[in-house]
Amino acid sequence: MEYRVERDTLGEINVPADKFWGAQTQRSKQNFPIGNELMPKEVVRAFAILKKSAAKANSDLGLLDSKKAEAIAYAADQIIEGKIDDHFPLVVWQTGSGTQSNMNVNEVIAHVGNKWLLENGSDLILHPNDDVNKSQSSNDTYPTAMHVAFVLKLEDEVLPAVKTLKNTLKGKIDAFSDIVKIGRTHLQDATPLTLGQEISGWHRMLEKSEMMIKESVEHIKELAIGGTAVGTGLNAHPEFSERVCQAISEFTGKTFVSAPNKFHSLTSHDESVYAHGALKGLAADMMKIANDVRWLASGPRCGIGEITIPANEPGSSIMPGKVNPTQSEAVTMVSAQVMGNDATIGFAASQGNFELNVFKPVIAYNFLQSCQLLADSILSFDERCAQGIEPNHEQIEKNLNDSLMLVTALNPHIGYENAAKIAKTAFNENSTLKETAVKLGLLTAEEFDEFVKPEEMTHPK
Amino acid sequence: MEYRVERDTLGEINVPADKFWGAQTQRSKQNFPIGNELMPKEVVRAFAILKKSAAKANSDLGLLDSKKAEAIAYAADQIIEGKIDDHFPLVVWQTGSGTQSNMNVNEVIAHVGNKWLLENGSDLILHPNDDVNKSQSSNDTYPTAMHVAFVLKLEDEVLPAVKTLKNTLKGKIDAFSDIVKIGRTHLQDATPLTLGQEISGWHRMLEKSEMMIKESVEHIKELAIGGTAVGTGLNAHPEFSERVCQAISEFTGKTFVSAPNKFHSLTSHDESVYAHGALKGLAADMMKIANDVRWLASGPRCGIGEITIPANEPGSSIMPGKVNPTQSEAVTMVSAQVMGNDATIGFAASQGNFELNVFKPVIAYNFLQSCQLLADSILSFDERCAQGIEPNHEQIEKNLNDSLMLVTALNPHIGYENAAKIAKTAFNENSTLKETAVKLGLLTAEEFDEFVKPEEMTHPK
Amino acid sequence: MEYRVERDTLGEINVPADKFWGAQTQRSKQNFPIGNELMPKEVVRAFAILKKSAAKANSDLGLLDSKKAEAIAYAADQIIEGKIDDHFPLVVWQTGSGTQSNMNVNEVIAHVGNKWLLENGSDLILHPNDDVNKSQSSNDTYPTAMHVAFVLKLEDEVLPAVKTLKNTLKGKIDAFSDIVKIGRTHLQDATPLTLGQEISGWHRMLEKSEMMIKESVEHIKELAIGGTAVGTGLNAHPEFSERVCQAISEFTGKTFVSAPNKFHSLTSHDESVYAHGALKGLAADMMKIANDVRWLASGPRCGIGEITIPANEPGSSIMPGKVNPTQSEAVTMVSAQVMGNDATIGFAASQGNFELNVFKPVIAYNFLQSCQLLADSILSFDERCAQGIEPNHEQIEKNLNDSLMLVTALNPHIGYENAAKIAKTAFNENSTLKETAVKLGLLTAEEFDEFVKPEEMTHPK
Amino acid sequence: MEYRVERDTLGEINVPADKFWGAQTQRSKQNFPIGNELMPKEVVRAFAILKKSAAKANSDLGLLDSKKAEAIAYAADQIIEGKIDDHFPLVVWQTGSGTQSNMNVNEVIAHVGNKWLLENGSDLILHPNDDVNKSQSSNDTYPTAMHVAFVLKLEDEVLPAVKTLKNTLKGKIDAFSDIVKIGRTHLQDATPLTLGQEISGWHRMLEKSEMMIKESVEHIKELAIGGTAVGTGLNAHPEFSERVCQAISEFTGKTFVSAPNKFHSLTSHDESVYAHGALKGLAADMMKIANDVRWLASGPRCGIGEITIPANEPGSSIMPGKVNPTQSEAVTMVSAQVMGNDATIGFAASQGNFELNVFKPVIAYNFLQSCQLLADSILSFDERCAQGIEPNHEQIEKNLNDSLMLVTALNPHIGYENAAKIAKTAFNENSTLKETAVKLGLLTAEEFDEFVKPEEMTHPK
Repeated sequence: MEYRVERDTLGEINVPADKFWGAQTQRSKQNFPIGNELMPKEVVRAFAILKKSAAKANSDLGLLDSKKAEAIAYAADQIIEGKIDDHFPLVVWQTGSGTQSNMNVNEVIAHVGNKWLLENGSDLILHPNDDVNKSQSSNDTYPTAMHVAFVLKLEDEVLPAVKTLKNTLKGKIDAFSDIVKIGRTHLQDATPLTLGQEISGWHRMLEKSEMMIKESVEHIKELAIGGTAVGTGLNAHPEFSERVCQAISEFTGKTFVSAPNKFHSLTSHDESVYAHGALKGLAADMMKIANDVRWLASGPRCGIGEITIPANEPGSSIMPGKVNPTQSEAVTMVSAQVMGNDATIGFAASQGNFELNVFKPVIAYNFLQSCQLLADSILSFDERCAQGIEPNHEQIEKNLNDSLMLVTALNPHIGYENAAKIAKTAFNENSTLKETAVKLGLLTAEEFDEFVKPEEMTHPK
Repeated sequence: MEYRVERDTLGEINVPADKFWGAQTQRSKQNFPIGNELMPKEVVRAFAILKKSAAKANSDLGLLDSKKAEAIAYAADQIIEGKIDDHFPLVVWQTGSGTQSNMNVNEVIAHVGNKWLLENGSDLILHPNDDVNKSQSSNDTYPTAMHVAFVLKLEDEVLPAVKTLKNTLKGKIDAFSDIVKIGRTHLQDATPLTLGQEISGWHRMLEKSEMMIKESVEHIKELAIGGTAVGTGLNAHPEFSERVCQAISEFTGKTFVSAPNKFHSLTSHDESVYAHGALKGLAADMMKIANDVRWLASGPRCGIGEITIPANEPGSSIMPGKVNPTQSEAVTMVSAQVMGNDATIGFAASQGNFELNVFKPVIAYNFLQSCQLLADSILSFDERCAQGIEPNHEQIEKNLNDSLMLVTALNPHIGYENAAKIAKTAFNENSTLKETAVKLGLLTAEEFDEFVKPEEMTHPK
Repeated sequence: MEYRVERDTLGEINVPADKFWGAQTQRSKQNFPIGNELMPKEVVRAFAILKKSAAKANSDLGLLDSKKAEAIAYAADQIIEGKIDDHFPLVVWQTGSGTQSNMNVNEVIAHVGNKWLLENGSDLILHPNDDVNKSQSSNDTYPTAMHVAFVLKLEDEVLPAVKTLKNTLKGKIDAFSDIVKIGRTHLQDATPLTLGQEISGWHRMLEKSEMMIKESVEHIKELAIGGTAVGTGLNAHPEFSERVCQAISEFTGKTFVSAPNKFHSLTSHDESVYAHGALKGLAADMMKIANDVRWLASGPRCGIGEITIPANEPGSSIMPGKVNPTQSEAVTMVSAQVMGNDATIGFAASQGNFELNVFKPVIAYNFLQSCQLLADSILSFDERCAQGIEPNHEQIEKNLNDSLMLVTALNPHIGYENAAKIAKTAFNENSTLKETAVKLGLLTAEEFDEFVKPEEMTHPK
Repeated sequence: MEYRVERDTLGEINVPADKFWGAQTQRSKQNFPIGNELMPKEVVRAFAILKKSAAKANSDLGLLDSKKAEAIAYAADQIIEGKIDDHFPLVVWQTGSGTQSNMNVNEVIAHVGNKWLLENGSDLILHPNDDVNKSQSSNDTYPTAMHVAFVLKLEDEVLPAVKTLKNTLKGKIDAFSDIVKIGRTHLQDATPLTLGQEISGWHRMLEKSEMMIKESVEHIKELAIGGTAVGTGLNAHPEFSERVCQAISEFTGKTFVSAPNKFHSLTSHDESVYAHGALKGLAADMMKIANDVRWLASGPRCGIGEITIPANEPGSSIMPGKVNPTQSEAVTMVSAQVMGNDATIGFAASQGNFELNVFKPVIAYNFLQSCQLLADSILSFDERCAQGIEPNHEQIEKNLNDSLMLVTALNPHIGYENAAKIAKTAFNENSTLKETAVKLGLLTAEEFDEFVKPEEMTHPK
């Protein structure tokens, strides 16, 4: 491999000739041979949006040559468009301020920008620190990039996925609104409801998660930029922060604002804990939905079997003809992962000291993984499972008619204790509620038929 | 011990003669000899508020004799006022719907109410199920009581505690706004800020937590009542839910509303996960604040020692004269507990099946414990530590003057790399920045003094 | 209330006249009005065992008057026997070294011991620090008491409970060894096994947990005592540690040893993390067992219903006659709690600094709660559920005969793909495997009967 | 792109012409577009070891043509050697039994093996299910591959890394055994110890973690193979399991055994929970060590500064000359990740139902990530930080001489309370202990010098 020599304040170092990064990136690459988890590309791209915005702000404030700002914007766009992804080789497990990834972006932008300047007849030279990082510190840029990345991911991936599944479920609610089925509480037979009602509970879960994510994402829109090294804003123009936030808002179409207290922005990740709490709520709900689906579809002959779901692949390498609820399984494994990610994020957020919390990359990695996995698994579950849910009418009716809990409709007429007597006797004698009620002399057959109408039990008046 | 015989649908059972509970409570007491964690008193009292409200609604709807409603209200008030706490002997580790605690409340209210009816010349008799539990099921009352208890705890205990500490910190921000000190990032010396600014970061943490708790508590104000057994509202009047919520709002002074989808209310605890996520954010922040306080107060001779905190007790059983940051320690242990509680709540919330989630008591227990511990520890920390924080001027000044990171103020003037050279040389030669800057010929002494003014570095213009 | 005046190095303080504690306990009580979680009684009693052992060692080494040692032993025994529990009013949320609980024990022992000395005609006076705490520090006594408490709890409560349930399951394995039933994987019908085999999986879980707990408890038997303030053993005789460990071993009947490195003992709780990991394994297993039991018992008419379990109480406040798997629910809620406790313990164990980890009480509280809840819930589940498990023969046979997965037995004879064709055709045409196999011309009826014998599929040769 | 047509029991499907996988892999790839986390390569390679071993066992038992077994072994070796990694495209978030990854391995081996057979003049054709998966099911092969992968990772990567750092620390213990320094408890000055002693605590942490990992890994050596679909071993020869375990042992040089109860092996992951508990203990210890290192190295001018560590890279993009403890930061972020992974694993392990736990891939992914990150970060920390730890003698001596806690040495001579009086007076009057002791008339200067010898306080006699 060929190398070129780069230098930083620690001295010289060899960098692969075909890579755009500089000395500090190279050092980090060599100093942290830990795991394979790259700094999330969402963070890198958010950094590029930030650098472009900072260059604009610096230039508008007369602090940076406008040609330099143009060069920075050109290079940043290369990153944003994903054209030079392989020039960001650093892993999550580096310095906890993300300094090295900030420098990676600074170095690549300087490199690409300098080539552009040369090609465009300029003899200006971008310096990674003095120009690309102008008015900035890793300590304010990394949390800014985190927040920008989180907002884009939540609003552009997680929420649309939730909406898609919500719409599918809405269709099922309507389609199955007349299908009366047995309810189950404690896994035991309970009073009836419609299949549409059952699914409406799932629908509401998504609606609530949507509301809670939307609410919490607003807090993430407060940006640290302008705080620089410790939150005081040293070396940044007083208008810098506002101007950068405005530029980021323009570039992304989201409304970001300058955080009112930068000491908080550098040291606290309470907003991320909170927003990930909304994601954990969603994960808990998805676990519940995916479990209900697989239990309701259990069988085909020895389970509950009240719905059918699509068969997407052979289910077993040994049992021929077996079909398994694999989309539910992917969703529930994702839920388990989000639970763990939430523990990591809470732990990391609690470990700030003085003017900085140095657990930022691990927070970003876990937060974005949760977003990606939830969005992807929800869409996959929607397309390959939820859309294909169909009632198994025969089984639903059989269960409904067998159930002893229809007896609950008698409470207002004969009291809880008499109703209990009917249910228990019917169970012990393996007979129907009606037969038993009449036999016990508590009701006539006509009264029973008048009081116990499953479909009316689902919509009491 | 003397006993009386009580009965339920499973038969007869002995109950201690001096206890107000009935057969089902007694069975639960015998069937679940597990741990010592009683069903939180907050849940019991919220149940009483609910029972009183339900009786009012039933009575107003003409479904319950008004005298009976009065008796129920009388008995409920005894519970609310904490007069008969020892008639609620059940533990958290019972049925996961909390049915037995619902019945405990029903039974005690019936018992106390019946005595009241008798004393008031009525021959009416309250039945725990048919009257006190009228139009209700454990499946909707327990989550209702949970939510009422959570809202009262969050709004009446947690938020006031946060506000108290916030106010104390506000006073410190103002008092210490002129004290310039060294900043620290990565535990290493960084650029200066004022002690007031440092504390303003903590203040903002509490402000943000306050906002996030307030936001999330709104979701908890949606109540399950009216869903009865499976969410359909079987055996409840269509107006019942709204009327109960209105009555609860009147009794508590908070605005509760009927949840729009009861299937969700019985099976999902996404709102509790979300709200506890806000508490976890607060716990993470308190961990950070308490850690900063104890580190800044570390010493007395061999630590950082930039602040002093009150000495509340002898610190060591072996080292005479030792004083330890014990309030910080209580706070950080509470933070650790809240992290674990959050894991339990997320796990529990994910385990619903069909029409019910049967992990409700464990969610209630952990949620309320987090509230109690956060509120108590914050108030204790406020009173016995935060209020007494004072700067150690001598140490603060010594550190400020020694710091090499004042060099950062030179970046705009001589560039990052030259500034780095000064800092490194000064460090290696154990000299001051100024001496080194002049010696290296990068600045005159006058320029140095003009550019490097710590107090101006804290409020850049 | 009446008071007496006590004093410590911070000055005078009022103590309730009827309480045996002294100034430092009183201060802690006033300084930490946080929550209601008392320092676990197991820790207090382990402290008493330790104080008695330390007095013996000090006396044997000629460092403590033997009469004083006798007085300490007398007072310690009062504590061990649980006679003076209400003289230990301190909560978990105190100083993180547990210093105040150490002093609580020192003070109560001094108080009770002094009364005893007086009554026994001695004019010697015990000093809480100089005598009862002689050769000790909170920093070595608290972790010692933790370990002693953990070992007693694990060996005397958790392991016996596991053994009890294991024995019950062993009985069921034998009783149900001939009951062939359908297996289920992915909740879908799978190849058959016996009910005894199914339960043998649960049995093995308990056996493995037992092995893992036993293994990990050995590490807990290493004691910190002798390290004193920072691990060097300052102010303790070189033989002190060994002698104390020997005395504790005698008093408890367990083999405790002096930890080879005391710096580790004061700062690391890796052993507790590890041992609680074994408890988490048990919790995960119990969750699985309790879930299986309630699913297999689901119904009574619309579930899987292959086993029946005892009906211990009325299940519903609204649905008459309902019986719920409440013991399973208590067990699974306990599992959720243990998961959270594990998160707290891991977090707390990671937060040591320099010569001490000051999260000890929160570790002790969570560890002992997990032990208590697991032991209690396992015993309750054993007695009120597991012992009463009975097969529902009718349902088991119906399911077995309906299953399509018996087709797996044909793989070796006709290959996976032909077998799959039979299963799918039978499913689509709602026919039996045998009919379909013959119809498709893949086997004769005789061959089918020869190859597909469910009972032989459970014990392949 | 060019495709070839493959088929399975669900029909035909296009597979990229240059890929070795078959229909089921292709379906999974299309059905689970979720995240980017590939099934860990360690699992894939362990599968290959297993397939080769199974082929040997089947062949030795006369159930598989020996030429076919040879072909399978050839193909498996290609996988083991990492030559065809890009033919394993499946992600973690698939079916929870890992069936699709089992089939991926079966398909690739059949493909590669068939090419080999053709090239070697054989007209035999390997079938992925009937030959490569012979006597196996995903339900026993996946947990087998998990266990094999875990054992290799723990024994060949984690334990050697721990050993390396342990050895480095051993060297430091010896080198620094005479450097007396101040101890710190509660972050406050405490009695002295040597720097070697301080580090010996860290060393013991690694030693204990090593012991606990070694112990727990033994449980992982029990393999599920032979259980096939539900644990009964249907379609497997009675000797198959033992023979496979023996072959795996030969191929890996580790001693694997056939698990005594296969129902357990398919449904419980208690062993993985337990072993990961040992890893969590290690993570907690590493967090403590890395924190101590960065606190002791804090400064350079305004921190504790008792040690120096290597400067590996520029620390700040804005503060010139700043050097940060970045290796510690990587280690502590890894610790946070392991804590979360532990939560995920516990959750997942608790969710088994009936004859299978379908959270296997998420357990494997998290377990192996913890191993990788711990091993890598420990080695990096060792090489780039721990090896370079050096004492800052000047600062150490200054702190030692200033400390008030040397007073503890006076307890046995003048009692705790008098000693406390000296410490407090010295603190308040900002004087030395000796001056104060003499002034208070409690000791002569000579007595003080005789009793208070810091170096002797570290090794009491």
